[in-house]
Parts: sequence; structure tokens; C-alpha cells
Amino acid sequence: MGTSVTKKAAIIGGGVIGGGWAARFLLNGWDVAIFDPDPEAARKVGEVLRNARAALPALSDGPMPREGRLSFAGTITEAVEGADYIQESVSERLDLKHRVFAQIQQSVSGVPIGSSTSGFKPSELQQGAADPSMIFVAHPFNPVYLLPLAEIVPSVATDAAMIDRVKDMLRDIGMFPLHIRKEIDAHIADRFLEAVWREALWLVKDGVATTEEIDEAIRMGFGLRWGQMGLFETYRVAGGEAGMKHFMAQFGPCLQWPWTRLTDVPEFNDELVDLIAGQSDAQSGHHTIRELERIRDQNLIGFLRVLKERNWGAGRVLLEHDARRRAGADQTVLAEPGPVEFARMTVLPGWIDYNGHMTESRYLFASSETADAFLRWIGADLDYVKSGFSYYTAETHIRHLGEAKVGDALTGTVQVLMVDEKRIHLFIRLLRDGTEVATVEQMLLHVDMAAGKACAAPAAILARVGALRDAHAGLPRPAAAGRAIGVKP
Amino acid sequence: MGTSVTKKAAIIGGGVIGGGWAARFLLNGWDVAIFDPDPEAARKVGEVLRNARAALPALSDGPMPREGRLSFAGTITEAVEGADYIQESVSERLDLKHRVFAQIQQSVSGVPIGSSTSGFKPSELQQGAADPSMIFVAHPFNPVYLLPLAEIVPSVATDAAMIDRVKDMLRDIGMFPLHIRKEIDAHIADRFLEAVWREALWLVKDGVATTEEIDEAIRMGFGLRWGQMGLFETYRVAGGEAGMKHFMAQFGPCLQWPWTRLTDVPEFNDELVDLIAGQSDAQSGHHTIRELERIRDQNLIGFLRVLKERNWGAGRVLLEHDARRRAGADQTVLAEPGPVEFARMTVLPGWIDYNGHMTESRYLFASSETADAFLRWIGADLDYVKSGFSYYTAETHIRHLGEAKVGDALTGTVQVLMVDEKRIHLFIRLLRDGTEVATVEQMLLHVDMAAGKACAAPAAILARVGALRDAHAGLPRPAAAGRAIGVKP
Repeated sequence: MGTSVTKKAAIIGGGVIGGGWAARFLLNGWDVAIFDPDPEAARKVGEVLRNARAALPALSDGPMPREGRLSFAGTITEAVEGADYIQESVSERLDLKHRVFAQIQQSVSGVPIGSSTSGFKPSELQQGAADPSMIFVAHPFNPVYLLPLAEIVPSVATDAAMIDRVKDMLRDIGMFPLHIRKEIDAHIADRFLEAVWREALWLVKDGVATTEEIDEAIRMGFGLRWGQMGLFETYRVAGGEAGMKHFMAQFGPCLQWPWTRLTDVPEFNDELVDLIAGQSDAQSGHHTIRELERIRDQNLIGFLRVLKERNWGAGRVLLEHDARRRAGADQTVLAEPGPVEFARMTVLPGWIDYNGHMTESRYLFASSETADAFLRWIGADLDYVKSGFSYYTAETHIRHLGEAKVGDALTGTVQVLMVDEKRIHLFIRLLRDGTEVATVEQMLLHVDMAAGKACAAPAAILARVGALRDAHAGLPRPAAAGRAIGVKP
Repeated sequence: MGTSVTKKAAIIGGGVIGGGWAARFLLNGWDVAIFDPDPEAARKVGEVLRNARAALPALSDGPMPREGRLSFAGTITEAVEGADYIQESVSERLDLKHRVFAQIQQSVSGVPIGSSTSGFKPSELQQGAADPSMIFVAHPFNPVYLLPLAEIVPSVATDAAMIDRVKDMLRDIGMFPLHIRKEIDAHIADRFLEAVWREALWLVKDGVATTEEIDEAIRMGFGLRWGQMGLFETYRVAGGEAGMKHFMAQFGPCLQWPWTRLTDVPEFNDELVDLIAGQSDAQSGHHTIRELERIRDQNLIGFLRVLKERNWGAGRVLLEHDARRRAGADQTVLAEPGPVEFARMTVLPGWIDYNGHMTESRYLFASSETADAFLRWIGADLDYVKSGFSYYTAETHIRHLGEAKVGDALTGTVQVLMVDEKRIHLFIRLLRDGTEVATVEQMLLHVDMAAGKACAAPAAILARVGALRDAHAGLPRPAAAGRAIGVKP
């Protein structure tokens, strides 16, 4: 953040996966150069980027960094020049990937080259390479800009120190690098997906279930479980007090039962393709792919925010990413001339009520995000709360002045009206394009949480909030401050 | 609801699954009789019920029905007497299930008997039964009180009209009955689970990944996808504009690749059990099973609420369940003597902030839930909004008087202070055990949404809200009404 030099990622192959990588890097402040000979590449990447801009910022609880610069390169050499990281996402053909790696390593050396391959092992990717040590698997999951997982698979020939640096880079763009300890075809996750896919094809082919029924069997049941615990932790819980051994004793013998078509692969012919494509049309054809993408993204945002609220699983990755980004980003507040911008947010579909506007509790949510960032800045942060003290809201007066809609970019600013030992009187504005959509006036009380009553805040906090009050002393007092709700006679 | 006679479910087998069924029936207003010879049954069911009471009401946006009466029966005959529905959840042994069915059908006839079996086909369950037509598979997913899926599998001998009645009963307790069209070992979902389980055992046994790494590979990636779309819809989106056929052309050939250990089953011995149990301890052993259950439940509540906000997948099931329950439950409002209770809620972990109390925007959320129920009651419901008119909140004044904590039961009441053609002035109280934790004063404006300005509400709505105002005319005006936030000089 701040003074650091902008990093550059080169993306070779600009499809859904390459575009997703590009979006994740760009929105996290990296410059990105894409090479893809497809004349449609710019349009396709643009569509992914539009989806990502509407989605990824919704996972962040602080201002996003300035978006990086996107360019389309005419050659691989041009794309990788000066790159700190290179991601290959071309078609799943080994000869093509080998040619790409050869061209890259003719142009630059010592730069990490991750491959999005679903199936090839890193030792296969490295065959014939000028420098095998820089090549590894970095396998992401669609949509790349939302799902944190990247399977990182080195071979024995891969440079281990480079892999450590790469994992840190991926954490910088909010990902969860899962280091796979042994190379294996299809790594880990796709082996599961393939097992389920094979079984699902049988069920459709045999007329046991339609594609829609199979999807319901997943998303109404175990799919919900797997988004927050995986397979083993879920079964550990199912085993109950007796634990994992008990569960395995119960479930283990089933392995020998004829529950899946173990030894057999359905013939993959036009008839099967038509059957499945037809059922899929009947199931989902009333939505366009673009609509489904947006629905999927907003659902995933919702799940991820649920987990973030609980500091669990993928949500922990988001919290750690916020903390990384916050470090060092809090210093410029006093230099701002007016009310200070403490939060930036995008209005999400889940924030919308039946009127089609942002639902009223989300205005207070947006205000709380702003006040929380303010409190962190004055030193009343999580560590302070753990010490037994905090600021509580005593009263709030909200005025609704406009209607925020899906996709609106909102900023939250703070003006300090009054400070004394125990109280802070704030005036928060929620702005869209500089215009107020709501104002939120709040009285905060400094509280000794164990004693359950107000007490004086410490000098360090009072000094910091006092400095902000002094900086705001010359601002006009908002006309709405101190107003009551009333019915004029 | 209301005047309907309480129904009775008999639960045979009171383990985690039977207890989960019992909890779902009880919390949805059914009486439940459990038969389980285990002397620990009452304690075990009690623990499931405690979890369920802390979780299931959080999915509802209206008051829950009065909880049914739970009893433990000394015999199967006693348990099933007068039952409208019977669910068998005993151990996965066919001979035992046959004995249970025989005892049931010696006592009652014409009562549906669902089996929680994971693996047996209904035709197997029916072998030797006095009345096969009443026996079928009703396979739920743990935790039964939260996950909506129940796989309903009849055989050709099962009474089809009875199955339709059962599906409606299950919808009444908030479930999603998935009618499986052909009986097959392990139905649908467990075939997928078994395929993944087998592959996972190989990966652990071969040292490719630990249980924790496998769980991360699932929950950081495709697990999140599957909670909201299933397998086929996810891939339809991945196929992009070219659609499902394109996706299958890409992915199809992989079936022939050696990505999974198709033909082989790992030997299930003590060594494998110890390896997995040991890794699971290292991964999750710092949480007790009870803690993991609560974490899981709260995560699932979060996911389900996300989907409910979006009317998608399992969330649609919840919305439809609310609507079912609401029908006919709106009529008793005017009979209440004081401020009217319009909402009941349980404070969830996700509503808690870093101070350990309910986060401030959730007070307004709870108030909005109350006001929305009020608006539905006066006729300003979703259909009314679709006609182009609505009530918008103009101003809100919140006073925080107490600290709501996880698990607190809150009620929201409405007192109507003033009504005119365009405005409603409300005073909402959020109460815990009858004591105010917050008050929320609001001015609502009746709005022509297309014109974007206030206008007179129609006579029907004014009559209804006017009746409530008249009923409240004798109530004392709240001292806090009309107050402003201010700093005393």
C-alpha cells in the first residue's frame, strides 16, 4: 500500500479463467498485461472485469486500492516484460503450454510462472523448459475473483523459495494458496469434481434423476455443509461425541457396497450430451448466462460475508486480507481538509428491499462501517476492546435523503462535532457522487465493559480524536444536527 | 395455523437423525412421541433440541408457532398411537428395520412410515411388511432441523397419493421433499458423498493430502459454489455463452483420464482409521463437537439467510414456508390491548459485534422486520409495492437502552402515534423479557414510486392503520418520542 511500487502480472490466455486472474490482480492494485491472440479477448476480459468490479469490493471492509492499469499485449514477450508474476491460462493442451513457457523464458528469467491447468502435473509442464525451477501449478476456481482457493503444486524441480514468495503474492490479492505436497493428476479438488461428475452422468443416463434434481440434491443438502466445513470436519461432527473413529466405523463398510458405479465410465456420446444439455436448458434456460453469473456472484458474496462475520474458513482469509491492506493505510486522515472519508462500499443486491432501494438497516450498516473505521483510527480497535473498554452507541438519528440502488458506490465520512472525556458526538454522511443519501448523527459513550458503565477514555485516544475535532473546528455545523423527529402542529 | 388441530409425529430411533426430525416437527408445532430403548435417548434428543431451538427460529421472519409437546414412549405401540406421520431412524440394519415396521403396522394402519435409511431401497424396506404401500424412504441430511432436503423414494408398491400427502406434510415443517423417480441404492446425494469419500481416503492414505488440506480444497472453492447452485448449473455458467454443450465438449474427455482411482477401493483397516482420526484431531481437536455443531449451525443459518434474501435455492424454500405460515396468522392483531407484537427474533452470532453485543445496525434490522410485518398487516405488502406505491422511512431515531446478546429472544412491538394521508408516525420497541433494549421512532412517508414523491395512501390502508391508531389512542405517549440528540450545555 501507500508508497509501495505497483507490481505487474502478465496473464497469458484471456478466457474466463485468465480474465478472472486479471480482474483479481487489477482490483488489488496490480498492473496487468494480457496476451491472447483471440480478437474477442478484450471484450471477454471486459465482461469478466465488469462482474468482478461489481463483486470483489463487496468483500472488503476498507477502501479498495486504486485499480491497476490493464493493457493488452501484442506478443508474449511484450506481456511478460517487467512482470513480477506470470499466470498461464491457455487451453488444456500440453504442447501448447510448453510453447508458451518456452516463449516466456526466452524473454525473461527468474519470474514465477503459474499454470491454471486442471489436470497436468508440474513435472509434465516443466518438460523441455529452459528453467523448470520457475514453473508450477497455480490452479484457481471459477469465479477466480471471488473464490479464494488456488492449489499450488510444485514438482521436485521447482524452486521452493520462489513458491514461498508466490504464496505471499497470492495472499496479497486475497487468495488462499493451498500447497499440495505431492504432485498428482488433477491435484485434489478436481479429482472430487470428476468423481461426482462421472456419477452424475450415470444418474442422468440411467434416468434416475434429471440435472435439476441432481442440483437440488446437492444445494438443498450437503452443498450447504461443504461451503463452511469440508468433508472430514462435517463427518467429525456427524460422528457426535464418539468422534471420527465412530463415524468411520459406521460409514467405512459402505465402501464395499454397490453405491457408485465404481468400475465403469459412461460412454460419452452425442446422445448423452444432448440429454444433459436439454435437461439443463429446461432447468436454467430462463436465465441468461450473464444473469446466472450475477446470481452466483451475489450468492457467493453472501456466503463469504457470512463466513467473514464469523472469522471461519474462507471468511478468515478475507479478514486477514483486510488486516494486511489496512496496515499502513491509516496515516493520511488528518491531512484531509473536510469531513474524513473512512469507508467505501458498493450497494449489493442483498442490501435491497422490496421497494428496489437499499433497505433501511443497511444505511445504518454503512454508517457503522464508517464509524468502526473511525474508531480503529482513534485507537479504539479490536485490541482495545479486548482490554475491556469500548465505545458504545447511545443514540442515533438517521435522515434518509436519497435512495441508494444496486451497484451504487457509497462513501462514508465523519465530522466530529464534540468530544469530552466520555462522549463523542459524530455526524456521518453517506454520499453517492458527493451527494448525501443519508446522514447519521450519533452519540458514542466510552464504556468500561466489565463495570457496564461509562468512564473516561484514556489520554491517547482523547488526543487522537481531539486532533480530529480540532481539524473539524472550522467546518460548519450540519443543520440537521440536534434535530428531532416531530409532527408540526 | 390458528384453529388447526395439532398433528402428531412418531419418531422411532432417537439418535442425531431421529432427534433432528423430532426437533423439526416440534418447532413447527407438531406433537412428537419418541421411542428409543437407549436409556440415554432423552439426554441425546435434548441436546439436539437445544441446538435446534437456537437455530431454526433464526430462519423464520414471522413468529414461530407454539412448540409441540415432546414425549418419550415406552413402546413402539405407544409412540405411534394417533400419529399422523411415522419416521424410522434406527440403525442401518435391514432386519431391525423390518421388525420395527412389523410392530408399527400391528398397532396402526394407513399411517405413512418414512425411513431415514441412507442406503436401502424402499422395495427392500417393504419386504415382508403387512402393508408395503405405506412404507417409503424419507432420507434427511444432518442437521435435519436446518437442511431442507429430504429425498423421498417410493417403490412401485408405495401408495402414490400417500406420497403426495407426505410431501405436503414435509413442506409444512419447512423441508424440500425431492421425489426420486427410480429407486436405487443410496438414492442420489449419498452416491456423490460416497464417491468423494472413497477418493478422499485414497488421497490421505497415499499421503497426497491431509484431512485438513482436503477440507480446505473443498470449502475454499467448489463447496461454496455447491451451496447455491449444484453441479450442472455451476458448469452451465462455467461454459459461458457457448453453454452446456461447450462445457461438456471441454470436460467430457477427462472422464477417460486417470484422475480418480476409478476401479479400486482402499482397504479399510485400523491403520487407515488411525491415520484419518489422528489427522482429524490435529485439524479440529481444539473445538469440542458441541462447539463445532454450533459453528456449523450458525454458518448454515447465515448461508440460508443469504439465499432467503435472494429468493434462491434453499432460500426459496424458506420464503415459501414463511408465506404458508403467515396465511391466516394476521387476524388477531386488533385484539391485543397494547402495542402490537409484530415480530419475534433470536439474536444470532452473526449479529454480534466486536464488543460482544448485537451490532447497532441489527437493532434497526430488527426494527425493520417489525415495521415490515406491520406494513404487511395494513396492506402495504409486496403486491402493493408491485402496484407502484410503498411506504418509505423518512427519519429514524434509535435509543439504545440495553445490550442484546447471542441467543436473546427479542420481540418487536408497534405503537401508532399519528396517521395522516401521507404519513405514519410509529414507535417501535425491541423487548427482551418485556424490557426495552432499544426504541425506534420512525416517520414513514407514503410514496408514488414512479413519480418519486409522497402522495395520499388509499382508503383501505388508511382504514386499517387508522383502526390501529384508534386502538392505541388510549396508550400513553412514549416519553422518548420527539426527542433530539443533543449535548446539554
